[in-house]
Amino acid sequence: MSDRRFFSLAGSFPLGRIAEATGSDLSDPSHGGLMMDDVAPLDTAEKNHLSFLDNKKYVDVFKATKAGACFVRPELAVHAPAGTACLMHKNPYKAYAVAAQMFYPQEKPKEHRATSAVIDASAKIGADCAIEDGAIIGPNVKIGNRCRIQAHAVIRQGVEIGDDCDIGAHVTISHALISNKVRLHPGVCIGRQGFGFAIDATGFTAVPQLGRVIIESDVEIGANTTIDRGAGPDTVIGQGTRIDNLVQIGHNVKIGKYCVIVAQVGISGSTQVGDFAMLGGQAGLAGHIKIGSGAKIAAQSGLMRDVPDGAEMMGSPAVPIRQSMKQTAVLAKLATGKKGDKA
Amino acid sequence: MSDRRFFSLAGSFPLGRIAEATGSDLSDPSHGGLMMDDVAPLDTAEKNHLSFLDNKKYVDVFKATKAGACFVRPELAVHAPAGTACLMHKNPYKAYAVAAQMFYPQEKPKEHRATSAVIDASAKIGADCAIEDGAIIGPNVKIGNRCRIQAHAVIRQGVEIGDDCDIGAHVTISHALISNKVRLHPGVCIGRQGFGFAIDATGFTAVPQLGRVIIESDVEIGANTTIDRGAGPDTVIGQGTRIDNLVQIGHNVKIGKYCVIVAQVGISGSTQVGDFAMLGGQAGLAGHIKIGSGAKIAAQSGLMRDVPDGAEMMGSPAVPIRQSMKQTAVLAKLATGKKGDKA
Amino acid sequence: MSDRRFFSLAGSFPLGRIAEATGSDLSDPSHGGLMMDDVAPLDTAEKNHLSFLDNKKYVDVFKATKAGACFVRPELAVHAPAGTACLMHKNPYKAYAVAAQMFYPQEKPKEHRATSAVIDASAKIGADCAIEDGAIIGPNVKIGNRCRIQAHAVIRQGVEIGDDCDIGAHVTISHALISNKVRLHPGVCIGRQGFGFAIDATGFTAVPQLGRVIIESDVEIGANTTIDRGAGPDTVIGQGTRIDNLVQIGHNVKIGKYCVIVAQVGISGSTQVGDFAMLGGQAGLAGHIKIGSGAKIAAQSGLMRDVPDGAEMMGSPAVPIRQSMKQTAVLAKLATGKKGDKA
Repeated sequence: MSDRRFFSLAGSFPLGRIAEATGSDLSDPSHGGLMMDDVAPLDTAEKNHLSFLDNKKYVDVFKATKAGACFVRPELAVHAPAGTACLMHKNPYKAYAVAAQMFYPQEKPKEHRATSAVIDASAKIGADCAIEDGAIIGPNVKIGNRCRIQAHAVIRQGVEIGDDCDIGAHVTISHALISNKVRLHPGVCIGRQGFGFAIDATGFTAVPQLGRVIIESDVEIGANTTIDRGAGPDTVIGQGTRIDNLVQIGHNVKIGKYCVIVAQVGISGSTQVGDFAMLGGQAGLAGHIKIGSGAKIAAQSGLMRDVPDGAEMMGSPAVPIRQSMKQTAVLAKLATGKKGDKA
Repeated sequence: MSDRRFFSLAGSFPLGRIAEATGSDLSDPSHGGLMMDDVAPLDTAEKNHLSFLDNKKYVDVFKATKAGACFVRPELAVHAPAGTACLMHKNPYKAYAVAAQMFYPQEKPKEHRATSAVIDASAKIGADCAIEDGAIIGPNVKIGNRCRIQAHAVIRQGVEIGDDCDIGAHVTISHALISNKVRLHPGVCIGRQGFGFAIDATGFTAVPQLGRVIIESDVEIGANTTIDRGAGPDTVIGQGTRIDNLVQIGHNVKIGKYCVIVAQVGISGSTQVGDFAMLGGQAGLAGHIKIGSGAKIAAQSGLMRDVPDGAEMMGSPAVPIRQSMKQTAVLAKLATGKKGDKA
Repeated sequence: MSDRRFFSLAGSFPLGRIAEATGSDLSDPSHGGLMMDDVAPLDTAEKNHLSFLDNKKYVDVFKATKAGACFVRPELAVHAPAGTACLMHKNPYKAYAVAAQMFYPQEKPKEHRATSAVIDASAKIGADCAIEDGAIIGPNVKIGNRCRIQAHAVIRQGVEIGDDCDIGAHVTISHALISNKVRLHPGVCIGRQGFGFAIDATGFTAVPQLGRVIIESDVEIGANTTIDRGAGPDTVIGQGTRIDNLVQIGHNVKIGKYCVIVAQVGISGSTQVGDFAMLGGQAGLAGHIKIGSGAKIAAQSGLMRDVPDGAEMMGSPAVPIRQSMKQTAVLAKLATGKKGDKA
């Protein structure tokens, strides 16, 4: 049961409609009229709640659940207790996510211009946008339809933002073109001048950074993350990519589509990351390297050179994960005389 | 001598009153009437200054100090120079801290509502609160007494904050219940939706994050730190815990009481940290693990599995600190033929 | 060609003037009248564009460039294609930087006080300053000439800022003295109380932090970086130093002149870093240590003790870089039976 101070519940919904919306099969079609009022975890769900079983190791919890209905893989439906209707789906967590969005739909922005927002006369703002207090929208900015520009966000001259975007509180954006359905969490800084300077005996000379930040559609960027603009080429974040909190992305970096970049990762300038790559928390990537598509980089790894598509890397400096585990084991054995833990 | 542009000095105080307030014993009770005007380090203190000796290795500095009075462990008082009165206490640094707070008391907020603050009519704000310029306080927010809500802080719908809290500039808070005496430094982001989504071949589907952030009393959270709300369970920060700058705390994490979490630590989702644990800077904790009470985790360690109460861990992947030091030594020896440094 | 939505081009300039401004020698003085309209990389430059060759490995690109003119080291000018005038300089990247600044000069602030800025009557602000919307300037603040105080920046009581400074959006500054030509990117937090407290069985007692942050001239500090004020001594950032995004600098830290501190570095309290040191991304420095002048610290290194001037360190715990590479190789060999990669 979610806290009503923070969450608005949209239900109830009949199971049949939930099955249809999620592409699930009811194990017993006669259950299609059962009404569900909310979603809940297996162990706390009641008979008017919808739950899910995603991981075999929770089968015992599933056997004892009081949930009225449950998303489950077809082969596990046999374990359902008598009072629990099964919604069979090959990816129950995905189906649950879709259903939970029915009960807790993301609020659409309500057309609104806060009196304390400062919007330049030359800015173009689409229909049904909410511009909150203290938002600052500069000259020639273009914002699409159904966007929410949260409190104190600062959007600088010329920035373009597509439809259905959510720009968090205290975000700063400059030198950027942002596509549709992009969500920036609070404190994100997009487009500052990258870390580019010439060095000689007299100190540093700033090199004007003349590129932009391009953010493709359906990207989400976590709180206080920073993305520098390109030095000449652009910095690009590919479609669908999810970036967590406190991540640093340097100038000219290209991130592919549908990557997952966990908190506190740092990516140095001009590095390229392929599609569907996953970077674990606090991993660091040197500059000017290429990380292949589908690569999996373990948390805290340090990447100093290219890795091919599908590589699984670990350690600092990173090596293939198998080798990293062997190294860990060998070192433990040398130090203790015993066989080391496998990390 | 502190800079009067930034600090207001409250003294002077007689030594007797200082001894009483700090639970110290004057080595010579006749010194109770000596007036102290300020606090200062041993090496720069003058005869109207109060200092402290906490670490034996500074005994020589103590012997030469011109401080009028000094907190010192009883057994070290014998080294005091002639002009220095001794305030004996088993924890001189703690006693000094209490005394320094007498000279530099934290300013109480003065009842104030800045004209540029935007406060929803349904918000309830206690007595003696200072609401600074640009602060935004949403519907049904409850704030206790004697709170300071600093400039441009954004507090979203339904958030509850106890008494004597200090909410820093540019802080964003949503989906959170905050107890008394909590201090959030500038740029903190509390309660954003965690990094939760279902993955399949079509990309990511957001899983509504239906939990909250619970912050118990007397917690302090450093600048630009991010704490995500729970996915269903809550994210909890236990009483008295101190969190430094730029720390990331994922959804569903439970931190115990009186923990110390140093800058740039990252804690992944659903991990639990026991009471009185200490996490060194840049340490990373994997998700779904348990760190025992009183555990000490060295800086930059990577924790990938449970550790018991009182464990002292180091390295990435982390091993017991003794083993880590052996590994470092063995590896150094192998590489150089010489005995390695102990780290 | 830069995006005109974001960048204003100041040209055109004759090559002779560019040669003079950058201290370059034209390989053919008769080219002094050629007009250049913009800067561009070698591979996309056209005949009215100015480019540069800094790295020998791009000589083949240079041979094929269509750039009208190019900065180049004297010994490489021989490779210039027929249509490309050469501007010879021993540091072509530096010369390019200076020229690019001619084409894209940093905009001078235009005297402006936004109506929504809140400026205390006792604050003193110099000539030709732009104070943007939502900026908050406290009592007794002093700001020099030609400063830009960006949107929603919060500058607390008594802070002093020199001439030609650029204070980014959502910056918070307290307890700080800032010299000339300092640039703070968005979200920087300067001067919060450091992580200082006495510990005993009852919890933590805050030790009043009575120092300041001193930032010398020509320092640049990246987005969302945090710098705590001193505990008694000051925290000092030396002249010309460049600090990247998301860096943490603890109380009492002294950074020398012309250091480069890459993103996500963490420096613990009371540590000293000499002049011209370079700290790679995500490196962590323990407290109370000294890093020598000119030291080079590799990314992700963990420094736990002093290192001498000019040291090159790597690993966690850090060892001299040569030794670190040997250790990596030895460990790889032990684990695989093959000779390890040199990291």
